Amino acid sequence: MNTTQTLAQFVAGHNSKKIPAEARTLAIRSLINWAGCALGGARHPAVESALAALGPFMGAPRATIVGRTERADALHAALFNGISSHVLDFDDTHMATLVHPSGPVISALLAAAQHFPIDGKTFIDSIVIGIDVECRVARTVFPEHYDAGWHITGTAGGFGAAAAVGRALKLDEKKMAWALSIAATQAAGLREMFGTMCKSLHPGRAAQSGLGAVLMARAGFDSSERGIEAQRGFAHVMSSRQHLDAATSQLGERWEILTNSFKPYACGVVLHPIIDASLALRLGNKLDAALIERIDIRAHPLVVELTGKTAPATGLEGKFSVYHSAAIGLLYDKIGSRHYSDAVVQNADVVNLRQKVKVEIDKSIAEDESDVTVTLKDGRRFHQHVEHALGSIDRPMEDADVDVKFRDLAGEVLSPAQAEQALGLMRRTESLELAGSIGDVLQPAKA
Amino acid sequence: MNTTQTLAQFVAGHNSKKIPAEARTLAIRSLINWAGCALGGARHPAVESALAALGPFMGAPRATIVGRTERADALHAALFNGISSHVLDFDDTHMATLVHPSGPVISALLAAAQHFPIDGKTFIDSIVIGIDVECRVARTVFPEHYDAGWHITGTAGGFGAAAAVGRALKLDEKKMAWALSIAATQAAGLREMFGTMCKSLHPGRAAQSGLGAVLMARAGFDSSERGIEAQRGFAHVMSSRQHLDAATSQLGERWEILTNSFKPYACGVVLHPIIDASLALRLGNKLDAALIERIDIRAHPLVVELTGKTAPATGLEGKFSVYHSAAIGLLYDKIGSRHYSDAVVQNADVVNLRQKVKVEIDKSIAEDESDVTVTLKDGRRFHQHVEHALGSIDRPMEDADVDVKFRDLAGEVLSPAQAEQALGLMRRTESLELAGSIGDVLQPAKA
Repeated sequence: MNTTQTLAQFVAGHNSKKIPAEARTLAIRSLINWAGCALGGARHPAVESALAALGPFMGAPRATIVGRTERADALHAALFNGISSHVLDFDDTHMATLVHPSGPVISALLAAAQHFPIDGKTFIDSIVIGIDVECRVARTVFPEHYDAGWHITGTAGGFGAAAAVGRALKLDEKKMAWALSIAATQAAGLREMFGTMCKSLHPGRAAQSGLGAVLMARAGFDSSERGIEAQRGFAHVMSSRQHLDAATSQLGERWEILTNSFKPYACGVVLHPIIDASLALRLGNKLDAALIERIDIRAHPLVVELTGKTAPATGLEGKFSVYHSAAIGLLYDKIGSRHYSDAVVQNADVVNLRQKVKVEIDKSIAEDESDVTVTLKDGRRFHQHVEHALGSIDRPMEDADVDVKFRDLAGEVLSPAQAEQALGLMRRTESLELAGSIGDVLQPAKA
Repeated sequence: MNTTQTLAQFVAGHNSKKIPAEARTLAIRSLINWAGCALGGARHPAVESALAALGPFMGAPRATIVGRTERADALHAALFNGISSHVLDFDDTHMATLVHPSGPVISALLAAAQHFPIDGKTFIDSIVIGIDVECRVARTVFPEHYDAGWHITGTAGGFGAAAAVGRALKLDEKKMAWALSIAATQAAGLREMFGTMCKSLHPGRAAQSGLGAVLMARAGFDSSERGIEAQRGFAHVMSSRQHLDAATSQLGERWEILTNSFKPYACGVVLHPIIDASLALRLGNKLDAALIERIDIRAHPLVVELTGKTAPATGLEGKFSVYHSAAIGLLYDKIGSRHYSDAVVQNADVVNLRQKVKVEIDKSIAEDESDVTVTLKDGRRFHQHVEHALGSIDRPMEDADVDVKFRDLAGEVLSPAQAEQALGLMRRTESLELAGSIGDVLQPAKA
């Protein structure tokens, strides 16, 4: 049996009882992280302009546009939520393939669940299986495909979305193979778009295309049953090397979602151990930032290469500044998305403190490690070493960490009470009769 | 200036008066051919199933689904009309790149013209410019891109659709460059899908994506301005070789639409000279098919390789049978799409006559050439040599030929009076105040 059919059989037939509890835990964690990111990104100009552009063409408003009062048809909701969940660059990452798994998968699945009746248990199964297929397909072409210039979240994402929705809508094997092949022939997304709004279009389109692929296959729109592995199919056409075995080895035994990872801070991961150290110095020593004379950081070389902006002027530039990132950790008790806003980047205390930061490259420091020393004006010194940053493989974000992140991001558009309600509902997804009700609590009340 | 920006400047700024009359003639011919193909394909199961799948998600029904009583929002209309215009494999071909130009371009443009006010002159300009950009972008990656397995109508089509709609909606240069880049990052379509409904999804999605790209760019959704030529852009990522000069050389001087070609018969082009010869033998000699003893054909080797089915059972198989194709030319006065229906393929007279056909491979015969000899039972012989088939580069289909084809295809869904009305309106497109009215006449009256 070939790759596409094997995956289709897995999606259609894998016994739900054989999905381990840890995978379900990760699915709920992924859902909450996805929802937080989408809430935080809901008012980004990328979402505003996409909605302004496409609003006049939308169908009956049955599905939630996360974080907004407007609703959309499920296909457009999948698109918008894929955009908003990725636009802050704060979503989850499958490190082995660099796929951001939840944007395509959950955006498509939640939209489907607001159009079709899908129970909570099936919803969670579908996240697990969707992310599994997405990352397995990504493995068939990684790293050559990514290195060539494909944004793998855009290309592999459609398979994940199709697998999740196909599972939830109980497609049979043959139609599931068609759906995966329809996703294959719509796979797209170029890395040239990085740095523009168009980057976040990729998970949005992947969600929309994957959902559409299932709807079409379900209605009898036929396709190849070998869209992934055929000579003129996805893996051969879109990669110089193929690793087809990776798609199917230990299928149903090894679960990709177990290595899904989450970011605690809304900036590049190389900055995370430095923020961890700064926060620990502030909180552990009750430091008064006004008394600080200098801050010395020993850091991995990539820190300076990627985040060397000494005088950032905007929130976006702040994300590329180790100086800003160290300063905020020493000035605030918690670091949330708002600390990468224009206002905080331009705040006089922050500007003053970031000028006291010195960075020394140290090749012995790992990417998820940091070493920070603060010297006060009175000569006292405080030192903090972080072995592994929060959110790294060795120190993953746990449920409680993701909840903190969710509350922070949700605060952009929901009241605290609404945020708690949403969090509570998502935590008990598996008990829901209709998982689509999650969409209802991810919208602010109408003005 | 780079490729994307040069093309964007051309789309936004090229003086309409500098578009030559021959290009406008070809634009109208392309429009009529496109409309005929879409009318003929309107009831194909690919269209039926796509419509059943996506209907519940469609927006306000302002745009025509060609050949059907239903309407759709413009984005879905672009999709469906792209599918129906290609599903019979009867649409136009730009031989230098193998792009089928009109499916993406006109499907997107007509849908846009039913949503926004676009006058007839602008509509024709936009077809010329859309097809020009589409084929020029295709040239940047042809043939390596096609050989690798990309369905170039799907990939280049989005650029054409974006250029046509962007021209019509008067996008400025910067936003036009964004729109072309948004099209670049959605470029998709694998040749593995050939032989399935999914092949015709490609021009449909290209039309929809290209139209969407313009809508988004227009609303401020930003993108790269170098989506075609950048190191991680379309041409480098999707082809092993780049021919970027081909996109911009003689821009506004050499017009790709002038080499657009049309098919007179709904089967592979290698059969066309044989049908021409059979028809000429029948009509020129008033042959009674009942008196025929044998039919001897000298043919290019590809004829037997591609169309060697001796006993076709269905309309689709008839398209791959030189025996069937020669027989119908000797039995009917005109060959239309219905002669590749199940009914005609199974007709006793057709079956009887096709068994009398002998084909001899002759390497001295060109692909667009044929040599047919009919021997009657009384011993008389009639010989016909066709130097160039109708629809070939050396003997293109003229307006009158395309009109005949349109009437034949339109007859599948429109009354003769409706077909004439539609034909008349399209022939005077340039005088229309609102080109969207063309959509109105391409729908059958409601039952």
